[in-house]
Amino acid sequence: MAIRHALKTSRSEDFSAWYQEVISGADLAENADVRGCMVIKPYGYAIWERMQRILDDKFKELGHTNAYFPLFIPVDLFEREAGHVAGFAKEMAIVTHHRLEQRDGKLLPAGKLETPLAVRPTSELIIGESMAKWAKSYRDLPILLNQWCNVVRWEMRTRMFLRTAEFLWQEGHTAHETEIEAREEAIQMHEVYKWFICDVLKMFGIPGKKPEYDKFAGAVDTYTVEAMMQDGKALQAATSHYLGQNFAKAVGIEFQGRDGKLQYAHTTSWGLSTRIIGGLIMSHSDDDGLNLLSAIAPYHIVIIPMIKDENSNKIMEYCHKIKSMLPDSVRCFIDTKEYSPQNKKWDYVRKGVPFILEIGTKEIESGNICVTKRLTLEKQNMSLGEFVEGIESMLIQHDECLQKQNENFCKKRIFKVNTFAELKEIFKSDKIGFVKAKWSGTSKNLKLLDELAVSIRCIPTEQSGSVAKCVLTGDETTTDAIFAKSY
Amino acid sequence: MAIRHALKTSRSEDFSAWYQEVISGADLAENADVRGCMVIKPYGYAIWERMQRILDDKFKELGHTNAYFPLFIPVDLFEREAGHVAGFAKEMAIVTHHRLEQRDGKLLPAGKLETPLAVRPTSELIIGESMAKWAKSYRDLPILLNQWCNVVRWEMRTRMFLRTAEFLWQEGHTAHETEIEAREEAIQMHEVYKWFICDVLKMFGIPGKKPEYDKFAGAVDTYTVEAMMQDGKALQAATSHYLGQNFAKAVGIEFQGRDGKLQYAHTTSWGLSTRIIGGLIMSHSDDDGLNLLSAIAPYHIVIIPMIKDENSNKIMEYCHKIKSMLPDSVRCFIDTKEYSPQNKKWDYVRKGVPFILEIGTKEIESGNICVTKRLTLEKQNMSLGEFVEGIESMLIQHDECLQKQNENFCKKRIFKVNTFAELKEIFKSDKIGFVKAKWSGTSKNLKLLDELAVSIRCIPTEQSGSVAKCVLTGDETTTDAIFAKSY
Repeated sequence: MAIRHALKTSRSEDFSAWYQEVISGADLAENADVRGCMVIKPYGYAIWERMQRILDDKFKELGHTNAYFPLFIPVDLFEREAGHVAGFAKEMAIVTHHRLEQRDGKLLPAGKLETPLAVRPTSELIIGESMAKWAKSYRDLPILLNQWCNVVRWEMRTRMFLRTAEFLWQEGHTAHETEIEAREEAIQMHEVYKWFICDVLKMFGIPGKKPEYDKFAGAVDTYTVEAMMQDGKALQAATSHYLGQNFAKAVGIEFQGRDGKLQYAHTTSWGLSTRIIGGLIMSHSDDDGLNLLSAIAPYHIVIIPMIKDENSNKIMEYCHKIKSMLPDSVRCFIDTKEYSPQNKKWDYVRKGVPFILEIGTKEIESGNICVTKRLTLEKQNMSLGEFVEGIESMLIQHDECLQKQNENFCKKRIFKVNTFAELKEIFKSDKIGFVKAKWSGTSKNLKLLDELAVSIRCIPTEQSGSVAKCVLTGDETTTDAIFAKSY
Repeated sequence: MAIRHALKTSRSEDFSAWYQEVISGADLAENADVRGCMVIKPYGYAIWERMQRILDDKFKELGHTNAYFPLFIPVDLFEREAGHVAGFAKEMAIVTHHRLEQRDGKLLPAGKLETPLAVRPTSELIIGESMAKWAKSYRDLPILLNQWCNVVRWEMRTRMFLRTAEFLWQEGHTAHETEIEAREEAIQMHEVYKWFICDVLKMFGIPGKKPEYDKFAGAVDTYTVEAMMQDGKALQAATSHYLGQNFAKAVGIEFQGRDGKLQYAHTTSWGLSTRIIGGLIMSHSDDDGLNLLSAIAPYHIVIIPMIKDENSNKIMEYCHKIKSMLPDSVRCFIDTKEYSPQNKKWDYVRKGVPFILEIGTKEIESGNICVTKRLTLEKQNMSLGEFVEGIESMLIQHDECLQKQNENFCKKRIFKVNTFAELKEIFKSDKIGFVKAKWSGTSKNLKLLDELAVSIRCIPTEQSGSVAKCVLTGDETTTDAIFAKSY
């Protein structure tokens, strides 16, 4: 007999439909009426806020400060950095008017702007312009900035969290006196992302460098963490760029060095967006919906009062008593909405709340409680004392289980191959994953990958050092690369 | 002999130039190259972040949750609410294209949109559209949302923080089952603003209702806090609106009531923006620059090491020792930048750091420190132990002094008048302020005020109840109103 699940669609049936169902089932977000945009609903936004707090604390610990730069970028500024314009100037929202006028009952754009403005797709140029004003001497460096904001890239095919016209992110921008310092910064922030993605969010990710042809537009080096999703595809989870002096030259970040001479700064930029929520979903969720790590779960425990009118006061009091007994670090919510307890319970299963308590007269009388564990959907009876005493270690176990589960899945989906034929076989199968193979680093024969809709995700930091033939060119090389289909 | 100050311009010489100088001297913000936009620099943004944290905690305590809604609003949505379109549809940034194309080396807009998109000037309509989907039954109400975001209103004359094309704010939006609940919410959030502005920021503000003709476009009632600036002008510091069913009808927020029948929700909205930083400046700053309350000061203490090469290690160690001795609640920064200690000291005076310590060999040897108090610029000698012991109460005193100082100023600038002649005399003088006078509530003779560039700021919550003649119409009335020039 088939097991019934809280979602209609399972991962194995239709991964993409399952993904949408996790999002709607957990009430994370919905498509907006505005083309390509999404509404991040309170439960989804609460997860983003927790992520923000963790990252923001870390950025500040490392000496960065937040600031805010304009949403609008005059389009001629894009003409300054040739590589950048090629990568970004294509699909952006362009503001051309500053007024609406009513004509025949319709509102029409009026007040044409002399220079059209792009809604920022990223802020290297506009922040660089400010840095150019601020960095007068080597004494003013490094400048270590971060900005939490919205950005817009006009995407043709959108998918919630993964690819939307507008999204939220943080973008770090730094300027340094020397290349060494800037390179260290880019790598340091790459390490921060690795820590956040793999240790905090317990996703399975491979850190490495992007191949030359797939770097950020205008960058010298792009570092990435490529996370494996439960369909075996890769998600580029966060990137950090060493930009060399490219942007410094484009916008004039010139300072007086220790030798008294004017020189260009070396800059970096690094970003992580709400896309990571999509990655989180596709890493840890299951056929019953979302699963959340305790670090980012809006609630660790939800208490559902089993209210019948005559004893509702007594039950509500008991629920509040339980909540008050819990350690301060444990986030507990008592849901008093007037919906059926059974429906609520399944809502919280789909929302990935680690532990769900249904509290009624029976629980008050016995002094025991029955905990539904989200991960296994098992119900466990224990005394209230035991629960309060054990909740913190139960949350640690919950996190460990999620990590193990994901790690076990992903490790089985890493394939080492020696030839293109082997690589092809894997991507033609229904168990795709990350393929580790030799690559000579040239763009020769990349179209063989295009045909499979596969790309080189990164040159992983961890290299075997062995010599073998490139699967694309047959040239001997020591370089290992990660090949995968991707989001 | 004239006293020298840290700023070139004094308040009495040129208030507007002084205001700009406080901002640049404290490194809060600067004009962006993009017309009408500003860059909020790290020190200014750190103040905003502290404000955000205080307000956000309060909003959440009262049951609100944050969410995020699209930046873009299809312009036809503005056609739905007649009052709203009249108030807002005029000066907005309009996106008409979604691509740039290179032609003759220039980037030009391409890919025309079928429906132009407005960059949100406020989000009643777009959030209302979501609420319409979410509120199916009375069980789903109230919906208590807040959003921290950027908004754009195309202003012709801009001034940093006070009026810029793009600014940052929070906008609360709630939907309720009944008029009573919604009215209570609007008043509750008005009270929160009053608390934040008058108790946390210790600004002098008068709470009240906006006159009919000056309400938020589409609102039934608008509540405001009108704060008095040091030039006697009023700043509308934050507003809260009861919107009735106007927006609910425009976007269809219809739910099944307890009687089983469909009905429209009652909604509210309330917002506070980065404008408040301008208000803060004009309330507490002086001719030496910014002054900050301890609740929002990025640093309470700055330590400036008086470094000469041979003993720099010893001095740095001692600075860190002082920092480590301070209570956790005290924010202390050690400035190690390679600039002259004297210049740094005056920078921190202009930045409004409550206490500045210059630490050199002398201080190490004596065990005493010399504290520069920002408020009086007096230097005070005390033992390190005394300082560490006393710092928390010194901060409380600092806050109290700031409040007193501002309150004394403002109270003297409140004038009670009985006739228009008296009112006119005050606004023709060089000591303008808030004028309290009777107003009959009609729009008759308002042009008399226009001629003086004066407006009715609010009907204050505190009413005397006495009967007298309206200064504009001569009609008898009990209503007191506040008249002022304003930002």
